[in-house]
Amino acid sequence: MKLYRIATGGGPRWCREDGPGRLRLLQGDPFTGSRDGAETLALSEAKLLAPAVPSKIVAIGLNYKDHAAERGKPVPAEPLVFLKPETAVIGPGEAIRIPEWAGRIDHEAELGIVIGCETKDLPSPEAAAASILGAVCVNDVTARELQDKDVQFTRAKGFDTFCPIGPCLVTDLATDDLAVTCRVNGGLRQASRTSQLIFPVDYLVWYVSRVMTLRPGDIISTGTPAGIGRLVAGDVVEIEVEGIGVLSNPVSVR
Amino acid sequence: MKLYRIATGGGPRWCREDGPGRLRLLQGDPFTGSRDGAETLALSEAKLLAPAVPSKIVAIGLNYKDHAAERGKPVPAEPLVFLKPETAVIGPGEAIRIPEWAGRIDHEAELGIVIGCETKDLPSPEAAAASILGAVCVNDVTARELQDKDVQFTRAKGFDTFCPIGPCLVTDLATDDLAVTCRVNGGLRQASRTSQLIFPVDYLVWYVSRVMTLRPGDIISTGTPAGIGRLVAGDVVEIEVEGIGVLSNPVSVR
Repeated sequence: MKLYRIATGGGPRWCREDGPGRLRLLQGDPFTGSRDGAETLALSEAKLLAPAVPSKIVAIGLNYKDHAAERGKPVPAEPLVFLKPETAVIGPGEAIRIPEWAGRIDHEAELGIVIGCETKDLPSPEAAAASILGAVCVNDVTARELQDKDVQFTRAKGFDTFCPIGPCLVTDLATDDLAVTCRVNGGLRQASRTSQLIFPVDYLVWYVSRVMTLRPGDIISTGTPAGIGRLVAGDVVEIEVEGIGVLSNPVSVR
Repeated sequence: MKLYRIATGGGPRWCREDGPGRLRLLQGDPFTGSRDGAETLALSEAKLLAPAVPSKIVAIGLNYKDHAAERGKPVPAEPLVFLKPETAVIGPGEAIRIPEWAGRIDHEAELGIVIGCETKDLPSPEAAAASILGAVCVNDVTARELQDKDVQFTRAKGFDTFCPIGPCLVTDLATDDLAVTCRVNGGLRQASRTSQLIFPVDYLVWYVSRVMTLRPGDIISTGTPAGIGRLVAGDVVEIEVEGIGVLSNPVSVR
């Protein structure tokens, strides 16, 4: 099921896709429980918001071999875990705002996993499925020069607007072999499949759960394939994950 | 003023010190506004909670020269910024729970700054004072072997219970020359002064505000001096910052 979060006069509301191009408003939310409401609206008329309100975004570095190679880094023996602050999250159509002093800014197309329930110390990767509500597209926007200079990724990946997610949250999606692509101004930049992940989704959820409690809405972003490249003001960047849709964001100066 | 957050039958409540060993319950909270309530209680009878509910903890690495030296690292040219997840926060008296598989676990005594209002893109360090509500003691508990192995600090410093804060939040405290100490089972392990910080408090708040929006309750932990050392189950670790008090936590196995 495709779940959208939209702006309404009464505040953010959850919806589900109800036929092509049509949304049905829900009572409640997909984390604590929801049921169909009476109202519907056209998807094209909806102001989409980020389809999760994470307390944290746990991101994974160098999780595709081809990306590790293009960065000149060895493939990690264990998942390379870092955090993006929730203040970086924006929704579909919102501008990625580039600080002019931060040097080169790159796109990174990723599959993101949204956690559905409080999750801690899973016994095994096989136990992860029950903790996963669904999947989203993530753009792990990165200030590449600061990343290399700082060593710690926090600043380079932590700027406000550097974590677009969307366009919707898809439940019941098999995430083991989905196409992941990035286009900038219509030109293909990244194209791979989640079958190429070094550490697959269930392994990542298990691995992170052994360190920190995951809360409903938290996101694990699974890493980006080769093809990273620069974004400049005026660009439009699209992240597409098969079965989810296209997350499109303009780029502007902060 | 010393502000405490305590557990009550009706949920967490804020208090202020009202004479030696006495707390007065407040209506509201220090972020959105509070006023004195009618009730008082003995500090010794209160169950203290972490005196902030941060959305994120922004921590600073290698911010004392003597600590950089003991870690064999150069003094950074800019603040070394990393994040601890809010799931790591515990209050006074709560157990630091060590994962047995995580290797050596160290204490790190730090002055923590609590942000009072939404703060973004401060024009200068001089503007930081208006964003600071007060100060707390922080223990930046660290899995030292994982820190060195992972390079990224997220896992090593992100375990649940690895961010004790307390015992209270002190407003109107000049933080430029405070004693910072750590004792384990009564034995002195760390002793320095915040006058030794490479990047002082106002600089750090300004620096972080240029990257990510700081929210009320967010914490900037300013780094630890030399003397880091191992914690094992059964230890009691005390972090003391002059003018704030003693943050004491037992250590147990997860």
